[in-house]
Amino acid sequence: MSDARDGVWVLTIGDELLRGEIVDSNKSHLSQRMLALELESARHVSVPDDPAAMEEILREAARRARVVLVSGGLGPTRDDLTTEIAARTFGRKLVRDAESLEQIRAFFRRFNREMASNNAKQADFPEGADILPNPVGTAPGFMLEVPGPAGAPPTQLFFMPGVPRELYRMLDEQVVPRLEARLGARRTVRARLLRTFGIGESNLDRMLSDLAQGDPDTVIGFRTQFPDNLVRILVRAADARTADAKLDVLERDVRARVGDLVVGVGERKLEEVVAELLRERKRTIAVAESITGGLIASRLTDVPGSSAYLLEGIVAYANDAKVRALGVSPESLAQHGAVSEPVARQMAEGMRRAGGADIGLATTGIAGPDGGSAEKPVGTLWLALADGEGTIAHRYQLMNDRARNKELASQLALDWIRRRLLGLPISAETFPRLLSAEPKK
Amino acid sequence: MSDARDGVWVLTIGDELLRGEIVDSNKSHLSQRMLALELESARHVSVPDDPAAMEEILREAARRARVVLVSGGLGPTRDDLTTEIAARTFGRKLVRDAESLEQIRAFFRRFNREMASNNAKQADFPEGADILPNPVGTAPGFMLEVPGPAGAPPTQLFFMPGVPRELYRMLDEQVVPRLEARLGARRTVRARLLRTFGIGESNLDRMLSDLAQGDPDTVIGFRTQFPDNLVRILVRAADARTADAKLDVLERDVRARVGDLVVGVGERKLEEVVAELLRERKRTIAVAESITGGLIASRLTDVPGSSAYLLEGIVAYANDAKVRALGVSPESLAQHGAVSEPVARQMAEGMRRAGGADIGLATTGIAGPDGGSAEKPVGTLWLALADGEGTIAHRYQLMNDRARNKELASQLALDWIRRRLLGLPISAETFPRLLSAEPKK
Repeated sequence: MSDARDGVWVLTIGDELLRGEIVDSNKSHLSQRMLALELESARHVSVPDDPAAMEEILREAARRARVVLVSGGLGPTRDDLTTEIAARTFGRKLVRDAESLEQIRAFFRRFNREMASNNAKQADFPEGADILPNPVGTAPGFMLEVPGPAGAPPTQLFFMPGVPRELYRMLDEQVVPRLEARLGARRTVRARLLRTFGIGESNLDRMLSDLAQGDPDTVIGFRTQFPDNLVRILVRAADARTADAKLDVLERDVRARVGDLVVGVGERKLEEVVAELLRERKRTIAVAESITGGLIASRLTDVPGSSAYLLEGIVAYANDAKVRALGVSPESLAQHGAVSEPVARQMAEGMRRAGGADIGLATTGIAGPDGGSAEKPVGTLWLALADGEGTIAHRYQLMNDRARNKELASQLALDWIRRRLLGLPISAETFPRLLSAEPKK
Repeated sequence: MSDARDGVWVLTIGDELLRGEIVDSNKSHLSQRMLALELESARHVSVPDDPAAMEEILREAARRARVVLVSGGLGPTRDDLTTEIAARTFGRKLVRDAESLEQIRAFFRRFNREMASNNAKQADFPEGADILPNPVGTAPGFMLEVPGPAGAPPTQLFFMPGVPRELYRMLDEQVVPRLEARLGARRTVRARLLRTFGIGESNLDRMLSDLAQGDPDTVIGFRTQFPDNLVRILVRAADARTADAKLDVLERDVRARVGDLVVGVGERKLEEVVAELLRERKRTIAVAESITGGLIASRLTDVPGSSAYLLEGIVAYANDAKVRALGVSPESLAQHGAVSEPVARQMAEGMRRAGGADIGLATTGIAGPDGGSAEKPVGTLWLALADGEGTIAHRYQLMNDRARNKELASQLALDWIRRRLLGLPISAETFPRLLSAEPKK
């Protein structure tokens, strides 16, 4: 059986893409997931909401690839033409699916709303399509099979919404399992993402790349997702059990070298890791924020159930609030300034006391672009943490713009909580140069 | 002269794109810039560093578009094949350019480095190419002209580096001027983005689309950037002054219809608009957050200089914090629950008092996914604002996941501040169905 077709073509549809109004991250996400199935993407194409352009590219992709992933154009408006054009291109009638229609209605009912009449068309599918449910939006997706070259299996075209969170979920729950089933007895690929914080990409590369040397079935990759650096480990093996075991060994080797700078696994953010640790250990926290301006509390409350451990946050921007709400001494403020070790310590201790929490955490610093001085340049950060064992405080020098300084400071603070709960050391030297450099004298 | 070709095709080249390792923002940037020259992009394509794939797509693009923008594959490594393949595709010899070679050497000298031998190939160009200098990197770009259809002007293919800052600079300094010269005495295009909050895309479409009817030189477009909906107005005219005047009239017409739901212009976020209003009017604010968990304070402190007006924030997640820090009555909490009108009002008033601010703002609600009930489903939000004129409070029903409920609640809260400072009404009816629907009994 000869099948010289490409593995995957990825098509995204929408005028907004061709006008450059949005950066299309769906294509990279789709290709990444396909690679874990050993399916290589040969082409990414975007076309506008134009029937002729859509029909042409659908036809070409169906002819040239074994799997075609399409995203966008499944919405309820006049511009959303993908379903209609797919039906026309492959000679199918449009058929309304009663079950999907009921699910769309139910989606609106959950929010006490009536379904608008134009949403009904989202329950139309080309005849013979395999419908892909959408648990987080109104637009179901669908899969069409069209004949492949003589002797080769059919081409599968998956049509998915353009909204990333709907697309991601449908991809994982509907598309990947169907492809795995189809690929059958191929070798298993397993990949894992290790999130590190506090070490640069080139250092990671230097420390780890030899782990994959000489083994074509082991791949180690690196990428930055500010403020984290990610290590992606991938192995191929005959079956899932062997692959998982091999991956476990590789992860252990990576951790042996990178140590406690590995802060998480997968898409799990540091606030989720910290949330779980706080819950597990039944510890509570209260946060006093100056430079981070509420970002730490906001990140902690992004995690469902955060009321169990986050008792209180105070954004003490004004000195008066530091004194009144946190009990910082006016003398310390006058003598050392708001960005200083004594004030950071008093903020953490005062917050712990006021909030009645196990841990009090405090940030004070200069986010920029203004407010810096020779002694305390923009990016100066004091972090302090108070708990039953005492209070620690350290100074860092951040080197980014205001938004990234806030983000990096909040990440450092969350990592302090993680370290404290795990019994790991926290010192000024815990984080390398970029984060902790003292300003030059 | 008939020229049925597409305006622009954008091609990006690199294995990393097809593996999904990076999100390609170059394509949207390139298309955006082309649109300002009245050149519409008809297709975006990415192919791997594969000679056959590159040759095929270059040939197709040169045949089908008037302008082809190519980025990537100009680096010094073995994988960087774009120049070589371009030469082969269009039947040109590769010729080394002495001046470019000297500039690459000079680039390394500036950083006290020797040029590596593989960088020399970056001074090779297809014969007849117009070389595009790269002041911020080692890889110069180039432009090739190949014959167009009979009677039509030649196709111009611009080859640029994939590194965004090198690409952006070359585009602005080398490519755009060449295209402007070629397009000659064309008309001027001016565009403006109006940000609306509280009105749906389809309603905007219905209210505004006739403003562009019958005038091919006026374009009105819509897009969503959660939680805002954006109206993009674009006009073409003989010269810049006429275009600007026409655009001013169009903006006035849009505002006459959409009214105070226009919350900003351009890329300016609502927190920046609110910050400017607070500064101008010398008003101060303190924020008590439950459902938003610090996000309002964090957004306000994203704006430089926010210490001038944001006096304090309290993330009062625990009931105890609501009582102690904000003076909410335990009886109200017991009788009505934390998500209720009396508690929202007391939070806003208590925050105003405690923070010594002109305005006290409070949020309480159920972000989800858990914690909802029949009476107070997930997405229930109470907003309250207290100032010298009294206290207002309204209930909203949000319909998203936790992250978006937080974001939408923070946006509503910021818009309340904007409205209050501008003397605009705030009522439960201020925002249409999507935001303010009361739950059905």
